[in-house]
Amino acid sequence: MHSWVDGQEASALNLQNRGLAYGDGVFETIAVRDGRPSLLSLHLDRLALGCQRLAIDADQALIHDELLRYAARLRDGVAKLIVTRGDSQRGYAPASGAPARRILQGSPLPAYPQANATDGVRLFPCQTRLAQQPLLAGLKHLNRLEQVLARAEWQDSSYAEGLMRDTDGRVIEGVYSNLFLLKGGTLLTADLSRCGVAGVMRDALLAQAPALGLDAQVRDLGLDDVQQADEVFVCNSVYGVWPVREFAASNWPAGPVTRKLQAVARTLLDT
Amino acid sequence: MHSWVDGQEASALNLQNRGLAYGDGVFETIAVRDGRPSLLSLHLDRLALGCQRLAIDADQALIHDELLRYAARLRDGVAKLIVTRGDSQRGYAPASGAPARRILQGSPLPAYPQANATDGVRLFPCQTRLAQQPLLAGLKHLNRLEQVLARAEWQDSSYAEGLMRDTDGRVIEGVYSNLFLLKGGTLLTADLSRCGVAGVMRDALLAQAPALGLDAQVRDLGLDDVQQADEVFVCNSVYGVWPVREFAASNWPAGPVTRKLQAVARTLLDT
Repeated sequence: MHSWVDGQEASALNLQNRGLAYGDGVFETIAVRDGRPSLLSLHLDRLALGCQRLAIDADQALIHDELLRYAARLRDGVAKLIVTRGDSQRGYAPASGAPARRILQGSPLPAYPQANATDGVRLFPCQTRLAQQPLLAGLKHLNRLEQVLARAEWQDSSYAEGLMRDTDGRVIEGVYSNLFLLKGGTLLTADLSRCGVAGVMRDALLAQAPALGLDAQVRDLGLDDVQQADEVFVCNSVYGVWPVREFAASNWPAGPVTRKLQAVARTLLDT
Repeated sequence: MHSWVDGQEASALNLQNRGLAYGDGVFETIAVRDGRPSLLSLHLDRLALGCQRLAIDADQALIHDELLRYAARLRDGVAKLIVTRGDSQRGYAPASGAPARRILQGSPLPAYPQANATDGVRLFPCQTRLAQQPLLAGLKHLNRLEQVLARAEWQDSSYAEGLMRDTDGRVIEGVYSNLFLLKGGTLLTADLSRCGVAGVMRDALLAQAPALGLDAQVRDLGLDDVQQADEVFVCNSVYGVWPVREFAASNWPAGPVTRKLQAVARTLLDT
């Protein structure tokens, strides 16, 4: 489907855009089914939070409206929504009063192997570490060179994801996803106050945990936590939940809690 | 002057460009005088190094040729050269075989107050810290949200620059420049192996130091090094050298070594 810039069909962006110059913006990758964006309010909330933390003055109601109209035309696929600080002349200082730019791009739903969801995936051990920048941690901003470098580490398609650690060795997330562990009946996921992207599916699953009788903890995780986990899975807002069946020397079956949360994710994405 | 994309006049860039999506590219900001790019080989070397470290397969000879042609038409001003990994569909994995994109943008030489060079500048103490990412340190890549956040910290135009430290408190650089100290007759500038941009003027001045009888050291610097310095200056490849006359509670006269290096920088920019 044709892309939109500021609500109009467009295939190109002004060269002065600060998204290109500095990665000065945020984005969301949103599954669209039957013309409706999945996890809509979580995506919009995170986008608004990102704009607020970066002081990008974007019209959130207009973004909401445009996303709904774009999704209605896309029908089924993935909508990528980018909001940049707009255009400016050379220099890091934001131009006062320049309007934020809204970009919508559509693509088909990715054709992932069915086995990723049924049998689980292998995680590649990425050497690229995540730098620790609390001012940007959690945000899905446009400065993504670390993910580009990490993804370029493997070509073997038997790895569906890579595991990323921070510069102090803490286990943080996948290149495209968040990571959860089940250990002694407790659901664990990494604290993202220093680095990482706080995925909306991660938030949604954390919110559902109590209703499923699961104790959930957000805390620092090490490789030993992964190795000692009873179940491991990755999640994002496009595919939902994939069990992790292998990382380094460790193997796991797709366990019952993973299956339960996989079903929850599927429901969240379909409604 | 009109911008170029891949050697052709253009005002817009394909929305699929990875520069926009991920900040997946590098750039140079090059002073142009009388139709010639200043510090040409240093700029091209750094650009090539950046492409190499990010594994961006760009035609460096073609970039050189286009820059010369662009500068000849720009005559006097600043040429910004951006090289991105090119276009790709959604996903961090680089598309194999997609050509890197070359973007050239021209602007007038900035009208800095003459007093910046003669009397020196005040440095704003930025709270935004630089994250430590050795894989990207030194490169002038397109992931520049930290500089955007730092520059947004002050509106008072009596500050011409801001001083940035890393997340461990080491003094690294200015938002737009590198920082030098003179202490006990030794020229000091920060080690940029963890973060920071290795400016071409910094490299040029370090290379000139021995011929000027100056001992130069690249090492970790703290705020105490700044406070105890006999002279302080900032430099970049557009304005050359500006003495720093004030930072926090410290004041400095524009000292003799600063004046000497200012003259060197002027010569480097003019030839």
